[in-house]
Amino acid sequence: MRDMSHYPVLSKVNNPPDIRDMDIHELKTLCTDIRQYMVDVISEIGGHFGGGLGTVELTVALHKVFNTPSDLLVWDTGHQAYPHKILTGRKESLHTIRQLNGISGFLKRSESEYDTFGAGHASTSISAALGMSIAHRHLKNDREVVAIIGDGAMTGGMAYEAMNNSGVLKADIKVILNDNNMSIAPNVWQISNYFTEMIAHPEYNKFKGYVWDLTGKLDNFGDRLRGIAARLENGIKSVVTPGMLFEALGFRYFGPVNGHNLHQLIRIFEQVKPLRGPILIHVTTQKGKGYKPAEQHVQRLHASTPFDKVTGKAIKKSGSSAAYTTIFGEALTEIIQENKNVVGITAAMPDGTGLNILQERIPENYYDVGIAEEHAVTFAAGLATQGVTPVVAIYSTFLQRAFDQIIHDVALQKLHAVFVLDRAGLVGADGPTHHGTFDLTYLRLIPGMVIMAPKDESELRDMLYTAVVHRKGPVAIRYPRGNALGVPLKDGFEKIEIGKGEVLLEGKGVTIIAVGSMVDYALKSVDLFKAEGYNPEIINMRYVKPLDTELLHRVASSGNKIITLEENTVVGGFGSGVLEFLAEHRYKNDVLTLGLPDEFIDHGTQPELHNLIKLDPKGIVEKVKAFAPLKSEASAV
Amino acid sequence: MRDMSHYPVLSKVNNPPDIRDMDIHELKTLCTDIRQYMVDVISEIGGHFGGGLGTVELTVALHKVFNTPSDLLVWDTGHQAYPHKILTGRKESLHTIRQLNGISGFLKRSESEYDTFGAGHASTSISAALGMSIAHRHLKNDREVVAIIGDGAMTGGMAYEAMNNSGVLKADIKVILNDNNMSIAPNVWQISNYFTEMIAHPEYNKFKGYVWDLTGKLDNFGDRLRGIAARLENGIKSVVTPGMLFEALGFRYFGPVNGHNLHQLIRIFEQVKPLRGPILIHVTTQKGKGYKPAEQHVQRLHASTPFDKVTGKAIKKSGSSAAYTTIFGEALTEIIQENKNVVGITAAMPDGTGLNILQERIPENYYDVGIAEEHAVTFAAGLATQGVTPVVAIYSTFLQRAFDQIIHDVALQKLHAVFVLDRAGLVGADGPTHHGTFDLTYLRLIPGMVIMAPKDESELRDMLYTAVVHRKGPVAIRYPRGNALGVPLKDGFEKIEIGKGEVLLEGKGVTIIAVGSMVDYALKSVDLFKAEGYNPEIINMRYVKPLDTELLHRVASSGNKIITLEENTVVGGFGSGVLEFLAEHRYKNDVLTLGLPDEFIDHGTQPELHNLIKLDPKGIVEKVKAFAPLKSEASAV
Repeated sequence: MRDMSHYPVLSKVNNPPDIRDMDIHELKTLCTDIRQYMVDVISEIGGHFGGGLGTVELTVALHKVFNTPSDLLVWDTGHQAYPHKILTGRKESLHTIRQLNGISGFLKRSESEYDTFGAGHASTSISAALGMSIAHRHLKNDREVVAIIGDGAMTGGMAYEAMNNSGVLKADIKVILNDNNMSIAPNVWQISNYFTEMIAHPEYNKFKGYVWDLTGKLDNFGDRLRGIAARLENGIKSVVTPGMLFEALGFRYFGPVNGHNLHQLIRIFEQVKPLRGPILIHVTTQKGKGYKPAEQHVQRLHASTPFDKVTGKAIKKSGSSAAYTTIFGEALTEIIQENKNVVGITAAMPDGTGLNILQERIPENYYDVGIAEEHAVTFAAGLATQGVTPVVAIYSTFLQRAFDQIIHDVALQKLHAVFVLDRAGLVGADGPTHHGTFDLTYLRLIPGMVIMAPKDESELRDMLYTAVVHRKGPVAIRYPRGNALGVPLKDGFEKIEIGKGEVLLEGKGVTIIAVGSMVDYALKSVDLFKAEGYNPEIINMRYVKPLDTELLHRVASSGNKIITLEENTVVGGFGSGVLEFLAEHRYKNDVLTLGLPDEFIDHGTQPELHNLIKLDPKGIVEKVKAFAPLKSEASAV
Repeated sequence: MRDMSHYPVLSKVNNPPDIRDMDIHELKTLCTDIRQYMVDVISEIGGHFGGGLGTVELTVALHKVFNTPSDLLVWDTGHQAYPHKILTGRKESLHTIRQLNGISGFLKRSESEYDTFGAGHASTSISAALGMSIAHRHLKNDREVVAIIGDGAMTGGMAYEAMNNSGVLKADIKVILNDNNMSIAPNVWQISNYFTEMIAHPEYNKFKGYVWDLTGKLDNFGDRLRGIAARLENGIKSVVTPGMLFEALGFRYFGPVNGHNLHQLIRIFEQVKPLRGPILIHVTTQKGKGYKPAEQHVQRLHASTPFDKVTGKAIKKSGSSAAYTTIFGEALTEIIQENKNVVGITAAMPDGTGLNILQERIPENYYDVGIAEEHAVTFAAGLATQGVTPVVAIYSTFLQRAFDQIIHDVALQKLHAVFVLDRAGLVGADGPTHHGTFDLTYLRLIPGMVIMAPKDESELRDMLYTAVVHRKGPVAIRYPRGNALGVPLKDGFEKIEIGKGEVLLEGKGVTIIAVGSMVDYALKSVDLFKAEGYNPEIINMRYVKPLDTELLHRVASSGNKIITLEENTVVGGFGSGVLEFLAEHRYKNDVLTLGLPDEFIDHGTQPELHNLIKLDPKGIVEKVKAFAPLKSEASAV
């Protein structure tokens, strides 16, 4: 148990009602406590860090002014929400954050009545808050609804759709724009650029000059009118920036307010609280505020592993192999060095996808479109129509956002775009909002889609190359979060024939057909299998679509029992593809489709989760033993 | 062959180069010809009509000024593009539009080099155009790229994402905002409301009054300054509306221009053509322009069946039953009359979904969020968190846009939202962009989702009721485009037990397990089957998820050959669900999964398409005969 005496005010606070009678001095100390507590705890265990340090005063002010949980706070993408968790009954469990059976790193409805809406994907808060506001209009309840959204999430089209709809409905909704001028990666929101460029705008200057000239000509009234002109100028400024932009969407605009000035925040929230209709409060904050290493390295500290509290440097595990993410980034950069008509596209995740490597080395072939997956994919389709090959690198779970665009804009037109899905499978600590557990199913249903899953980083390189030179339509490559296997990499690339799998180990009686990350698990299970008397054949399928039908015919006609193995839902996934093939050709082999169960899976480390659902070598052997006990296997051979 | 002598100029035009040397008088006559030609042809055959009548002058001006096809026109949602088709080599085939083997009702890359990007779903054009523009930046080509987007499509978040990214990239791109102040349904774009309300804006008036007052006080210069003030006023107007809004996104703004003044259009396009960077040209047009009945009934004529050329009235087929769309709209209205805590949500398709009935009778429980499917779903999730039940009615194909929101915002949080998918299956004339062929797969993979498909309109009513009272999580109901079966409707509603199918016809040897629209086809095939000596058991499955496992155990253990029948892709669909069940329990029945093939299917009438892919009663019997010839059936029994 942590000694809470280091945090004099925080130690007295368990829930928001505890802070409502505090005066400003006590609340300020509370902010100091929260910030220190976060640094102390998160430095030991890791976590998404910078966002929360920036929202300490904002969180305290919101819970002070609004009557939570009756009033509803809707946080967009939960990294902002660590202080919120600390203030709402979860300070004692902060050290369990993102760990198995611990609290979630994101908002989670089942965790607290103060978490009104789960959020792992960005830009959803205004839509959800609008729904809540309209619900209470129907229910005739008087409850405030406040969405808090970072500027990074404002590039997402959903946020715009929701603001527009809020304006049309004249809904009672408050939106806090938490503007830290720094989403995960900077400079992708044009409106933010616009704010700062406004003063230098030619139209604006032309107009200013016009007023200035005219008043200059009026001799005796000159000075007086120059003063007026200056005031006109100010008047215009306040009309056109930045409130006007939100007012066009039907919002009343307040701000900008210094998001680290607790007094100002409380005052403005009290001022706007009684106002009806859509209200936007523009709050400027600094990510990592109050913790030097975080202020200086905002992007690296976005998602943090455990780190040294003083220097901010990560505490490294030794001897680990490179991440798939890095292997991909390096390989793509190599490919583009040879062919400048290939470009990389990310949706605000250069570091997360490995495209930061491309950005650094060949910036002119690198595109960060902001948190805007729909646009990313159709932008790619546009590039493809003109013969430029787009490689779109988006996490498996986030690519769900662009499902329609992959179908309608890419696949239907048979355009050659390459989709690279990092974080496919269980991602670990980020939990169910981030697990990439559906892509094999949602991509497999798309006509003409080629789907690859590499067994290791060397195969990833070759698959990426194969995908880029394929040129016949869309190709997707999916691989898991985390370190690759550490196999040696060869120079250059080799094409892998489309739709061809490989037998890794000959065997008898049972055949394990594995995909991607599960190939390694299948190989790791071999010794366990042998110890139990099994002699399994192991296949690396490589392609989920098209299937290697020659190989499947061979396996099926052998009469072997078949185990399909994938880190994807078993509903409609690779295993179902094999079942479809077997049914079509009337094979009667026993088949066990191993994969992720048809349920949402919580957070925990990847090995913990694999163990939990028995999708690790030990679990696989156990399940196969139940499925194909040796006696019946002997009779099947 | 139509007598083209009625269209003196159009008769000389086959492709855009033919119009580039024409003078303004000849071009004006060309516009008259095109308009008349469209009315003459479309009145006979039906089609999306109003949009094209509004874009005649715009289309002529674009092809006159820009060097198509080297310069690239990207039309958003193709209904605007009929004049474009007429001008680009397809006037002779206009009468085949939307018919089997005829030209598409939408843009289609495979149809013409002038169709640079296919478009059936809205809001994609700016993303695609930006991709093309950036491609030519890489390829160092000098080609203009012009996106033409209606104001209706401007509610879609993608359009905003793409404009933002265009601004950030300072791309050479021109966007024509085709503002007919009327998307499919009006008044859902707040910015458009804002344009018209601007003049009455308090800030604006305050400022205007301020200038007016000041200048009024300056006696001798009074009159002169009043003039200046007026010019200031104009200056401000042009600064703040509506250009400012687009300028914030990085666009230079031109307009508004009268979109039916050919001379003005040509002049402005010539003026902006050499300009670099993102340019927005605001063009105002009138939907249905030049054809009285269409001008007056814009919404009804959006998608038109054949109609009387003079009155504009549809030529009715007699004796047809009500559409599923209407049955749904009526049923939902009945349910909401009893329970005001249920609301209906549409994404700009009140007529298409039947929610116009709710809108008319209980407007306070009706929400049209604009073309904004992502927001629609998360808005629904927000409503659900507060105990209001949202019924979200979106076409199967358009719901693909909100795939991630259904998973992340609804299902993961086990929220009770009802999704009603009209146009599930092949939709006919609208073709591959509109076919709803994937939903059973993309919904089935979602944990906790309940999926229903009614066999007829009576069952639809009961299913809707069951879904609304379910309250345990998300529920989806899918049904086809077009008329229901005409079965009698009973008063009120009955709950249908979740996950329970029904045997409609007892039989022996083969069991046909059908879903939704295919139940009727299965029943219609019975006589054909009997004539061939078969005695099939027919099951109406009702639920694709959860499956009726009791029923499936019974069928499978009978040893019957099993045929699954669905109007959805066979990849990962209902049939695959049955295969998964059978594999799990090691049943060895022969299974034939009938459904839509793993390819994109062209346009044509629904019966034509069903016939083409052998998914009509005759085709079903034929396929079952090949799958289960009577001799082997006899031995299986």
